Amino acid sequence: MMRLLALLELRSMMLYGCSILNGEARVGSGAAFAGFDPAAGVQLEPAYHSASTEDVELAAILADEAFAVYGKLSGKERGRFLREIAAGIDSAAVELVARAHAETALPEGRLKGETARTANQIRMFAQVVEEGSWIMARIDPALPDRTPLPRADIRSMLRPLGPVAVFGASNFPLAFSVAGGDTASALAAGNPVIVKAHAAHPGCSELVGQIISKSVKACGLPAGTFALLFDAGTEVGSALVQHSKIKAVGFTGSLRGGRALMDLAARRAEPIPCYMEMGSTNPVFVLPEALRSRGSEIASGLFASFTLGVGQMCTKPGLVFLPRNEDGDTFVTALAAKVAQSTSATMLTPGIAGNYAAGVASRGGQPEVETLAIGVSTSRDGCAAGIAALLQVSGADLLGHPELAEEVFGPGTLIVRYADGQGLVGLAAALEGQLTAAVHGSSADLAEAGDLMDILERKAGRLIVNGFPTGVEVCHAMVHGGPFPATSDIRTTSVGSQAIFRFARPVCYQDFPQACLPDELKNENPLGIWRTINGTMTRDAV
Amino acid sequence: MMRLLALLELRSMMLYGCSILNGEARVGSGAAFAGFDPAAGVQLEPAYHSASTEDVELAAILADEAFAVYGKLSGKERGRFLREIAAGIDSAAVELVARAHAETALPEGRLKGETARTANQIRMFAQVVEEGSWIMARIDPALPDRTPLPRADIRSMLRPLGPVAVFGASNFPLAFSVAGGDTASALAAGNPVIVKAHAAHPGCSELVGQIISKSVKACGLPAGTFALLFDAGTEVGSALVQHSKIKAVGFTGSLRGGRALMDLAARRAEPIPCYMEMGSTNPVFVLPEALRSRGSEIASGLFASFTLGVGQMCTKPGLVFLPRNEDGDTFVTALAAKVAQSTSATMLTPGIAGNYAAGVASRGGQPEVETLAIGVSTSRDGCAAGIAALLQVSGADLLGHPELAEEVFGPGTLIVRYADGQGLVGLAAALEGQLTAAVHGSSADLAEAGDLMDILERKAGRLIVNGFPTGVEVCHAMVHGGPFPATSDIRTTSVGSQAIFRFARPVCYQDFPQACLPDELKNENPLGIWRTINGTMTRDAV
Repeated sequence: MMRLLALLELRSMMLYGCSILNGEARVGSGAAFAGFDPAAGVQLEPAYHSASTEDVELAAILADEAFAVYGKLSGKERGRFLREIAAGIDSAAVELVARAHAETALPEGRLKGETARTANQIRMFAQVVEEGSWIMARIDPALPDRTPLPRADIRSMLRPLGPVAVFGASNFPLAFSVAGGDTASALAAGNPVIVKAHAAHPGCSELVGQIISKSVKACGLPAGTFALLFDAGTEVGSALVQHSKIKAVGFTGSLRGGRALMDLAARRAEPIPCYMEMGSTNPVFVLPEALRSRGSEIASGLFASFTLGVGQMCTKPGLVFLPRNEDGDTFVTALAAKVAQSTSATMLTPGIAGNYAAGVASRGGQPEVETLAIGVSTSRDGCAAGIAALLQVSGADLLGHPELAEEVFGPGTLIVRYADGQGLVGLAAALEGQLTAAVHGSSADLAEAGDLMDILERKAGRLIVNGFPTGVEVCHAMVHGGPFPATSDIRTTSVGSQAIFRFARPVCYQDFPQACLPDELKNENPLGIWRTINGTMTRDAV
Repeated sequence: MMRLLALLELRSMMLYGCSILNGEARVGSGAAFAGFDPAAGVQLEPAYHSASTEDVELAAILADEAFAVYGKLSGKERGRFLREIAAGIDSAAVELVARAHAETALPEGRLKGETARTANQIRMFAQVVEEGSWIMARIDPALPDRTPLPRADIRSMLRPLGPVAVFGASNFPLAFSVAGGDTASALAAGNPVIVKAHAAHPGCSELVGQIISKSVKACGLPAGTFALLFDAGTEVGSALVQHSKIKAVGFTGSLRGGRALMDLAARRAEPIPCYMEMGSTNPVFVLPEALRSRGSEIASGLFASFTLGVGQMCTKPGLVFLPRNEDGDTFVTALAAKVAQSTSATMLTPGIAGNYAAGVASRGGQPEVETLAIGVSTSRDGCAAGIAALLQVSGADLLGHPELAEEVFGPGTLIVRYADGQGLVGLAAALEGQLTAAVHGSSADLAEAGDLMDILERKAGRLIVNGFPTGVEVCHAMVHGGPFPATSDIRTTSVGSQAIFRFARPVCYQDFPQACLPDELKNENPLGIWRTINGTMTRDAV
């Protein structure tokens, strides 16, 4: 069989159905697939061609070559490149939103917001690298007269890792996809990026890929600085994670997919850092006084949170711990009414909708679980409908059936009724790692909840008081991470400026002449950055 | 068979031959073994009893319980505990040096220095946590009036991981063992520690373990804050790494041992951070002008460096790249004379000495490798003699036989003759990950060595100009790490104050009332630490 391997020049923003490799559109030789409109239930033009393992090889080699140049750019130069990408996304917002809407059925308003967030996130990283202090410069000057031994001149700073493989996520076709947080932070830190596009929004992926590719050209960077590879299956992703020139991986998706890639990476001859953001049920704890005084408000907020984006959020609250008392019954009744009156909405793909419906049905079928309410299906046959669902279980039964605490991706949540405060601590202690944990409590509730908060601090990357987990702020203090299985690396965040630290490593320079040192470490501090000199933070010269 | 599980109160500094568990000496039920004097070739008293997997279970449960208390201590409280340990080591220095000398044959002068370094290293971490800024406090205050959506109050800081397993190394019985850098940094970050003692210096390990255990008591900490487990084999270590309550691992040792533990940890239901410091050949590059002008000095420095501590250093220079010219020949002749005149010294164990001798012999037996010089054996039969060895190979043959670039632990080094500058870059590019890489060059040499330095920056955690890799300074800017196989985690260092970051994770607090926040994140900055507020470094209040 003849293999199709044509290169096309990317002349304008249009869909070629192609991977982007070496700055050009490349018609892959692998299996063809197409975007799908889950609302209309129809395939979208054009056909996409899966990349081959030869494409992976070429992308990795080009990325490695590009690293020699791109990894040496100044923060200001990388900032310029990032701002070029952000401007490109802003300019193409109308096309991006339209295509993403067709491919995901997410509302246009949400996608407009997500597009702006994606561009702003890239600009945040631009600002971080232009300012420059993020590289953690440390200087311990020589002590030639120290006894018994002199001290050498020791300086260190963060440097990039090398080519990074990024896996686009299905549920945020812009903010966690081709130019999402993983790509932005990896590029900001100085690493070339190869994106494995998510097959559920190929058109949106290709448009964004073209924007990045054009920014690479506009800034005169090596073509290998960025590549975009399509695949209907898992071969491209597996090959990327195992490629010796790939030095780190960013992934957002399912626990099953993330764990499989983690395991592949761990078996490499040279294991590499892997950042998988996977499953989380984002438990919400409603404490007695807050329930009594604000129960109705909390129920409204909870309903909005677990149905936001048809429940297709990593931070969807999927477990709600509620007292087993009259206030709890009132809360449940109000929430059930909201769910029962809600109408269905289209999910990202028929597969996701099918998994969600199966998850709700199998839980509802367990004798310990009560199905309190199911929304109204208004969807026509054949589309990927997601119908809100409210289930309930006792705390004791949850402990007996820990599988009930696993994530069900979609607009459903499970109420867990608990008997008293002590029981609640035990329930929290039994949870797996989470991205978030939220507690609703009055001042008096919180004053008594120290043990609960201590447990939750071990369980989650972000703790929230009197709020809901959805809506992840992109800022300097954000932690969108947490213990396994929420993520593969408890020490990291995939959202916010600290995400950049995932793609950098400390390098130490001993007794380097001033002329050979990076600017960040020169005596006079030409970049004016914050540095640690002899253990003390300062912007002074040495 | 009856299992021996007696508990003994630790009354004074004496050797019980016991693990330390729950603050008491525990006679393990596993296989017995003994310390060994490699210089005299005799076993040392007392007999040691390997811990059992039940001991591991108990240690892990106690450490997990202790974490609830220990993990919540203030930096000042943890500093007090660390200083208590350091003072204990200082007080026992004479006993520690004597026992370590008997068990390792390392010279008393070196061991005195190492003992002081160990105590000072612990005090450095005490200072870091007492000052407090290391936790990377970040605050993005609420923006209630922001449009289209208000911003919540988002704050984050580093928190400890939980119980840490530490594996003592054979070659630094104090500085990389029971109270070494891994233990000190893990304790400093707020994690209980369970040490698996190295079987090559059990007495020294037990004495140091008693010092830490007494410091735990003196500071009123939970007994599970520290445990010390002995094992003649690998069961205890394997069980520790796989235990669900262990949340991170620190290890210094062989590539084979480290990789085995990495693989076990990667297969856990909940994978955890693993910090293995393993093999490194620490290449030294001698450039032409430096060779011409300082060849004799470099040869002397190199000889001292690769024979320091009988070559039993992670940073021993094991590959030396030298021009194939007359200056290079002169250098080799001078170095060979030093090696030929050197006398043997006792290595840490007969096993290590045997491996070293076998490594030198097998390399010397390869047709591509020339044995330039071997030192003089002055050791009596039966002791663990290490004899200096100087071998030579061409650059081309090294590329054809990459196994020659693997670490041989002991006082030998391999000269690699290169033809010109371009060939040198190719040789450097073929190297695996390293702890260090050193370049000897004049200003003119260095001005032309940009490509080499760029390659080396990717290959090693520490780059050295006109110096040697041995002698790792304990300071804030040190990086004792590097790409695999030098370490398991390229983003980290096991020496210097940055080692603390290995045992901490960011936690985010959203919309927390001031009273519920850790002191580090309170508006008024009661601890006076450096914090990042809205992305800007400051010690001001919010």
